[in-house]
Amino acid sequence: MHSFKTPDKIKNSYSSRICQIADERKKGKKVVGTFCLFVPDEIIFAAGADRVILCGGKNETIPIAEQYLPRNICPLVKSSFGSLVNDGSSDVKSCSHFSMVDMVIAENTCDSKKKMYELLGNYIPTYVIDLPQRPDSPEALKYFLSELEKFKSAMEELTGNRVTKDRLREEIKSSNETRKLLHSLYDMRKKDPAPINGTEILKLLQRQYFLSPGEFKEHIRNLIKEVEESEPEENHRPRILISGCPMSGGNSKVPEIIEDRGGMIVAEESCTGTRSFWDPVDEDKEPMLALAERYIKIPCSCMSPNDRRVDNNLELAEEFDVDGVVYYTLQFCHGYNIEKHKVQQALKKAGIPMLFIETDYSGSDVEQIKLRVDAFMEMLS
Amino acid sequence: MHSFKTPDKIKNSYSSRICQIADERKKGKKVVGTFCLFVPDEIIFAAGADRVILCGGKNETIPIAEQYLPRNICPLVKSSFGSLVNDGSSDVKSCSHFSMVDMVIAENTCDSKKKMYELLGNYIPTYVIDLPQRPDSPEALKYFLSELEKFKSAMEELTGNRVTKDRLREEIKSSNETRKLLHSLYDMRKKDPAPINGTEILKLLQRQYFLSPGEFKEHIRNLIKEVEESEPEENHRPRILISGCPMSGGNSKVPEIIEDRGGMIVAEESCTGTRSFWDPVDEDKEPMLALAERYIKIPCSCMSPNDRRVDNNLELAEEFDVDGVVYYTLQFCHGYNIEKHKVQQALKKAGIPMLFIETDYSGSDVEQIKLRVDAFMEMLS
Repeated sequence: MHSFKTPDKIKNSYSSRICQIADERKKGKKVVGTFCLFVPDEIIFAAGADRVILCGGKNETIPIAEQYLPRNICPLVKSSFGSLVNDGSSDVKSCSHFSMVDMVIAENTCDSKKKMYELLGNYIPTYVIDLPQRPDSPEALKYFLSELEKFKSAMEELTGNRVTKDRLREEIKSSNETRKLLHSLYDMRKKDPAPINGTEILKLLQRQYFLSPGEFKEHIRNLIKEVEESEPEENHRPRILISGCPMSGGNSKVPEIIEDRGGMIVAEESCTGTRSFWDPVDEDKEPMLALAERYIKIPCSCMSPNDRRVDNNLELAEEFDVDGVVYYTLQFCHGYNIEKHKVQQALKKAGIPMLFIETDYSGSDVEQIKLRVDAFMEMLS
Repeated sequence: MHSFKTPDKIKNSYSSRICQIADERKKGKKVVGTFCLFVPDEIIFAAGADRVILCGGKNETIPIAEQYLPRNICPLVKSSFGSLVNDGSSDVKSCSHFSMVDMVIAENTCDSKKKMYELLGNYIPTYVIDLPQRPDSPEALKYFLSELEKFKSAMEELTGNRVTKDRLREEIKSSNETRKLLHSLYDMRKKDPAPINGTEILKLLQRQYFLSPGEFKEHIRNLIKEVEESEPEENHRPRILISGCPMSGGNSKVPEIIEDRGGMIVAEESCTGTRSFWDPVDEDKEPMLALAERYIKIPCSCMSPNDRRVDNNLELAEEFDVDGVVYYTLQFCHGYNIEKHKVQQALKKAGIPMLFIETDYSGSDVEQIKLRVDAFMEMLS
């Protein structure tokens, strides 16, 4: 099995990026933090700002958050909040990029994030984009477009730069390039055996959280090259599609277990997977409209109806020739948790086995998950 | 303490209403079921349809729902779904009005309801109104208005009747009358001691779920009259405001405990309380716009920002001269659960003690809640 060699340059990419951001900020560049794929990067970069992604995957900052937030909500929400409000008075360290944002660009997606942002506003300037919950309605698109226009103005105000149509077109083109590169990488995973582990792909996608778009592209290109040059794998292992909640940097518990126990993750239907890059933005349309049209179609469980996600799972299962699906939800994520029923029914009809894992960031359920994954692998082998 | 005498007519109101609905349906009248205050009754009645409210408060139908829905979501959502999909194959009986609706009129408010409605569509025609999550944005209002216009057309299609401006105005006037009557009833509770228990008021408000607007008004009038004629109460008891999640018919666990342990509930900041009737609809404006403006302002925790709810709690606490607030949430209701922090901070600043109770429909935590309520009452006495 090919394992990503992590050259020194990539190993040091986090700290060098932190220095770069610090440097940019000294020169007056604004840095914003986002939490969600529904916030179009293109508008941020077209305004001349930089951005990092603030979804937390570390367990350590959760106790900080639980001083303000209920225990029984999503670990991602708590971890992110804990990292952001961490004043350093405890021994826990947040990742540096959490303290380097001038503004948080949030969005009304799920209940927990929506209400968490209201508290976050006490600690850091927080701009919220409202999101209609309908992917296929002309009125919803119009409302979303008006929200993106307001967001564009807010970015202009923050940075002092005008967001021109030309700049938007450049950024759309650049983001589409990243999307194409990721498609190329994912195409390689269609081979059997796949030439690279899913956990390596996840690590790459998690790097997107702090890297600049240019560096991220370079990392993808390097990985593609490395995979091309690697020796082909010989043994078939059960091919797994992971579907569900995102896995933020620091959280790779379940994919690691799956691949340790003999599985091979070949695709991820998630925000740290296909949902982040699958669809390009139309380069021929008026840029703001093209962005609204592309982003409102992201098949997140916050959308209703969300049949597109059910279909996506079936399509990915076929395209990547998967043997089974691991449906992954973070604890108390009602959206993905309830949507499981529809996905499960569709997979059942298609004869594709599914294992459901609901978990958090702690290690307390690792042994139990291992047992369940073992049973699933036995069934698939 | 005044206790509502429940004359025979009121005792039999459920079964006589069921007969009435059955009769209406035979004659071709359509009956719709709603779940949420954000769906304007006025549009339903103006279309010549009847309506019942389908929020479940019974524990018994939850196991039926858990065949399809996760366990760790809101009991109200599970109870409602269980009542609606109950095919009678188990021993559990749903209330009759659950099986008498031609269409469910749903709304995208919280994550759990939103996703539950998608499954519900497999069992009963389900129309969903999308709801922007901003109470104070002109664009959100416009989007909500467009959603209400679509809903009006759907009602016209269902009933075959046109919804005219005149009919809407009549229904707005009628609903405003109900709101005024409830205000009169609530005004009586401002006396110390209050002349009527909170549990009696809750029972009245829960009757709204199945009664026709005319009958409901009659019930309020009767209760007002009865309270006026009753002997005044002599002993002061700690005056409690309940704030948070709704209490649907069948669920009165916490208010009963509070009043059994010596408290007196004098107001409810909830959907089975002030939120349902506090604001009138402007009778002088274009009716659809007036409805959109009134309904989008309901301070449900699904709205963001929702400072209006925080303010409401402070205003109600003052108006009703409360000694303490019981913040009540249903398990896994992220919205009210996270919003607790803001309400608690505001109450603390105003010097008003607060007790937090998170519960479900089971009896398993009754003894624990009693202990906590006892401690709170001791503190307030």
